[in-house]
Amino acid sequence: MRAAVLHAPGDVRIEERDRPVPGPREVLVQITAVGVCGSDVHYYEHGRIGPYVVEAPLILGHESAGHVVEVGEDATKHAVGDRVTLEPGVPCGRCRECRAGRYNLCVDVVFFATPPIDGAFAEFVPIHEDYAFALPDSLSDEEGALMEPLSVGIWACRKAGVSAGDRVLVTGAGPIGILAAQCALAFGATDVTVSDVNEQRLEVARRTGATQTLTPQDGLDLEVDALIECSGHPGAMMDGIKAVRPAGVAVLVGMGPEEEGTLPLSLIQGRELWITGTFRYANTYPTAIALAASGKVDLKSIITGHYGLDEAEAALKVGREDPASVKPMVVP
Amino acid sequence: MRAAVLHAPGDVRIEERDRPVPGPREVLVQITAVGVCGSDVHYYEHGRIGPYVVEAPLILGHESAGHVVEVGEDATKHAVGDRVTLEPGVPCGRCRECRAGRYNLCVDVVFFATPPIDGAFAEFVPIHEDYAFALPDSLSDEEGALMEPLSVGIWACRKAGVSAGDRVLVTGAGPIGILAAQCALAFGATDVTVSDVNEQRLEVARRTGATQTLTPQDGLDLEVDALIECSGHPGAMMDGIKAVRPAGVAVLVGMGPEEEGTLPLSLIQGRELWITGTFRYANTYPTAIALAASGKVDLKSIITGHYGLDEAEAALKVGREDPASVKPMVVP
Amino acid sequence: MRAAVLHAPGDVRIEERDRPVPGPREVLVQITAVGVCGSDVHYYEHGRIGPYVVEAPLILGHESAGHVVEVGEDATKHAVGDRVTLEPGVPCGRCRECRAGRYNLCVDVVFFATPPIDGAFAEFVPIHEDYAFALPDSLSDEEGALMEPLSVGIWACRKAGVSAGDRVLVTGAGPIGILAAQCALAFGATDVTVSDVNEQRLEVARRTGATQTLTPQDGLDLEVDALIECSGHPGAMMDGIKAVRPAGVAVLVGMGPEEEGTLPLSLIQGRELWITGTFRYANTYPTAIALAASGKVDLKSIITGHYGLDEAEAALKVGREDPASVKPMVVP
Amino acid sequence: MRAAVLHAPGDVRIEERDRPVPGPREVLVQITAVGVCGSDVHYYEHGRIGPYVVEAPLILGHESAGHVVEVGEDATKHAVGDRVTLEPGVPCGRCRECRAGRYNLCVDVVFFATPPIDGAFAEFVPIHEDYAFALPDSLSDEEGALMEPLSVGIWACRKAGVSAGDRVLVTGAGPIGILAAQCALAFGATDVTVSDVNEQRLEVARRTGATQTLTPQDGLDLEVDALIECSGHPGAMMDGIKAVRPAGVAVLVGMGPEEEGTLPLSLIQGRELWITGTFRYANTYPTAIALAASGKVDLKSIITGHYGLDEAEAALKVGREDPASVKPMVVP
Repeated sequence: MRAAVLHAPGDVRIEERDRPVPGPREVLVQITAVGVCGSDVHYYEHGRIGPYVVEAPLILGHESAGHVVEVGEDATKHAVGDRVTLEPGVPCGRCRECRAGRYNLCVDVVFFATPPIDGAFAEFVPIHEDYAFALPDSLSDEEGALMEPLSVGIWACRKAGVSAGDRVLVTGAGPIGILAAQCALAFGATDVTVSDVNEQRLEVARRTGATQTLTPQDGLDLEVDALIECSGHPGAMMDGIKAVRPAGVAVLVGMGPEEEGTLPLSLIQGRELWITGTFRYANTYPTAIALAASGKVDLKSIITGHYGLDEAEAALKVGREDPASVKPMVVP
Repeated sequence: MRAAVLHAPGDVRIEERDRPVPGPREVLVQITAVGVCGSDVHYYEHGRIGPYVVEAPLILGHESAGHVVEVGEDATKHAVGDRVTLEPGVPCGRCRECRAGRYNLCVDVVFFATPPIDGAFAEFVPIHEDYAFALPDSLSDEEGALMEPLSVGIWACRKAGVSAGDRVLVTGAGPIGILAAQCALAFGATDVTVSDVNEQRLEVARRTGATQTLTPQDGLDLEVDALIECSGHPGAMMDGIKAVRPAGVAVLVGMGPEEEGTLPLSLIQGRELWITGTFRYANTYPTAIALAASGKVDLKSIITGHYGLDEAEAALKVGREDPASVKPMVVP
Repeated sequence: MRAAVLHAPGDVRIEERDRPVPGPREVLVQITAVGVCGSDVHYYEHGRIGPYVVEAPLILGHESAGHVVEVGEDATKHAVGDRVTLEPGVPCGRCRECRAGRYNLCVDVVFFATPPIDGAFAEFVPIHEDYAFALPDSLSDEEGALMEPLSVGIWACRKAGVSAGDRVLVTGAGPIGILAAQCALAFGATDVTVSDVNEQRLEVARRTGATQTLTPQDGLDLEVDALIECSGHPGAMMDGIKAVRPAGVAVLVGMGPEEEGTLPLSLIQGRELWITGTFRYANTYPTAIALAASGKVDLKSIITGHYGLDEAEAALKVGREDPASVKPMVVP
Repeated sequence: MRAAVLHAPGDVRIEERDRPVPGPREVLVQITAVGVCGSDVHYYEHGRIGPYVVEAPLILGHESAGHVVEVGEDATKHAVGDRVTLEPGVPCGRCRECRAGRYNLCVDVVFFATPPIDGAFAEFVPIHEDYAFALPDSLSDEEGALMEPLSVGIWACRKAGVSAGDRVLVTGAGPIGILAAQCALAFGATDVTVSDVNEQRLEVARRTGATQTLTPQDGLDLEVDALIECSGHPGAMMDGIKAVRPAGVAVLVGMGPEEEGTLPLSLIQGRELWITGTFRYANTYPTAIALAASGKVDLKSIITGHYGLDEAEAALKVGREDPASVKPMVVP
């Protein structure tokens, strides 16, 4: 099979690999859609993300969907031909975090496109049957692939405790920010403000339901029940936290430039705010599929380009080159 | 001023009363819309609800909205002319329940149309300014009055923990059931099944978003995350609980015919279900207004009739007489 | 190896079995202490518990501890000689319930002494390494075995939300009731009332910290934050629930005589009580060990007899014969 | 009556004031014990705490207990002669925060010894009857006064979600740190580590139950479920947060030198930590009394000196002068 393999920063090659054989409880999936994530771009540009370093050739891509083409022994959940979306991390299922339902914090997780584990920029990928989820007919393969970033938004809203009638501020209108805003609406929020410096992205946010959009010049004179910070920008984080009502929650999704950062401690104390961050997600795929299938979120409007597997490198570059790019898709 | 006064079961008289004078922190509201609730009907028919007995002439009505016409000396939140909806229970604000945020369980609450406290089937009603909530222009006075039953639905959904992607069963399609189903959708539920014996009411449920409706003949072969029981019918409660997934929640809103009832204890244990009930609501009015103003719930489609204050008795009777009646409104 | 095998109600035989060989991630444990549980007695007397029927010879016993004597390949957590307590249920780790952290509700769990899975009335038992927990030196093997019923008490307190300063009522002073009362104290409760008909058991409850004990004649004129029902007696459940404060919790641990039972629905609604039940436990073993090792619970005082493996049948019978019996131990 | 009045930093005078007259729902309390809090000392030394500035003569003291000597006309909860502890903040009871049970965040609260509200360094103080709590005979007046700092510890433990078997780190062994550590034990924690630079204070921590004490030289090589930061020291906060397990909680109680501070954002995200702060407390007094009366906390061992009302200034100074001072008491 063919795969797009990252050898070094800026060096992606299309290579022939052996077609994988599914293990005992696994299914083999022919990949038909893969979204390009900021983390793929970061590996492509820098060869690392924090402590995760690409030391051997690595197949990127972890937002994927496709068709089951082979079923491993003992696997009973899916049949050949089933359309599925792939939850890209398979946790150990036994450690303290897994047992407590926080499997996203399992240190033994095997996660797509995180060195040294290969991802989905390939024709075929094997996965444990319980981490492949059937797609309803109403969802396309591309939408199926986007269950992954949608999961990030769902997880952020769960951490933020977004509920009916809430006022939510989303700072940063990249794909995650736009989906987080859509999720906030799907969780019942009635005021969802999105801020960014990029007017084109704010336009997508408005088109997909944001009730208000702001640029930094507008200031942030509002009170919200929750902040979902998706920009990684220290100033946006600080200003966003200051907008949170007493006892509200700020969820840090975007990764900033530094390990450490400055927070308004007196405010956190005086208002008894809750600050937390997210690391991937847990128990989100069924929710993601239900939200997308019901029309409560609109995934198609964030897709801004299609690329063959041979064009994976172009898909990894477009975000830097085109400010209107939100989510490029690779279609093997 | 004129008021519709219940003297005995089946005996409502239009009487002249002194126009109330607002106390220091109160506003006086000219009532323009009052919904008729099942509890009003029950008092009208039986003169009591459980331990609450009508022993002296009582003005019914607790779902109300209107216009501020007078402002007490220390009241600062509203101006004459403001359109407001009235939260009909004013708790003590000091007891253990109030302090804990469970003010609906305050035993010293002063609640409209609960003997011996008068309600809103009257031209004017005084209320503590903090229990009058400004209505946005996008909501009519009648919709404003329905913030009260909407609050019951919101409270049920909060107790049930309804969140995005949930599957919810609502048994009973009276006004509360229909609004609870709408609230479940507004809280993010993607599958909302409503069951009832009355096809006309199920039609209203479908028109306002229920994804599935069932009559008892259809059986209840489904799994849900939460049950919101609004019928008070023991069989519906039992069957509904059996449909709840492990660790799910059943919220009993409808009042049954008896103080005690039979529950599936082995199932509650084997599935670790949570069973609870609701008594009024707390902290729901801002949410109710936000949901209605944003269009996430549709209150107009449950209104099935309008009556002058002189016709209050007809409004109290129509539910028994017309199976298509859902929510009659009194418009003083 | 030798094992005590249940062939039919009232028919336990000591038999020779092959010594088990630990699987890949398993350890083999030489059992040194097994507590006799009410469910063991129920299988011994009736050959079934609800839907679980003993259809083939079955080794009972699921409250066990011992010494690691063999380590399967890939197992790295324990060394030969380690003293361990065994969590008797190994869940699948992959299903919806497992992923959500509710692994006690996993339908694919493999649980000791639940037909057709053998238990621990045997010289050797294999177990997945992650379900064996190291015992500190301060705890004896017998105390180690009692981490299992202690877990039931911990789980009940977690469900009840017991916290510092709480008032808790425990109905039923069998081993589970006594341990639940101790757990309530360990969770910070300052008033823990235990009720039972058996004065000898109430004496144990008092000796292990209960602040008040009651017999049915005393009545139940108290208000509590939580009820932990451990008797399975419908009257105790009903009276206990009536003692719970508004918004309090009643946890049904004891299994009653019938699948269904009568509950005070009006009270559940009027006070917004929460009713739930427990099925085994999840994520309790580290807590159980910490509580026992710190001296916050006293396990030794509930042990009322010791029996060799050959005397397992006597251990299963003593509870019926001696009202002073609380927890007999089998010491293979 | 006599009162100790702060006129300017370092200027406390004993003055005659009119004996207060209790309002309709108030009781008048003859103060018999007042603890000196760090905030009293801060006002005494600096004349302000952040935005709260002493602009007119102010009576300090907010940790108080005494005897009811007069009862307002509508007050029914206490009789003359009752011994009571005083919750020093009376919230409005009506605002959004009060209604939600977060009355500590009420902006209209009337709080002792916070400019311009007088405190309890006086012979008599009036208070709303619902904010005076009866003391059981087993507690002295001095212990009664310490319900206030004990409340701070209880509140921190609630925010931290401390439960049975938890491991807790308390940084800072001032009165709040020592009481927070005791509270953590009372909430069921089995490992409670206290760190400070002051060996004498660590000795008090050990004597009152801390299972481990550390000085900065010892390093912080441990994993805990929760951090309760009581030092206000940026380094302690940073190191403490790094000790928190995935999904654990860090509660910032101690106020630092600056409005803003540096936090380990990558860690907060990678471990999904929760960071919050406390501002006073809510719904803690009944719990505090129950914990103290049951012996689960030991308040006497933190009292390190007694001063007459005339010696209030000496009580305000002793903390700076004597490193062995923990909690000086003023006894009017």
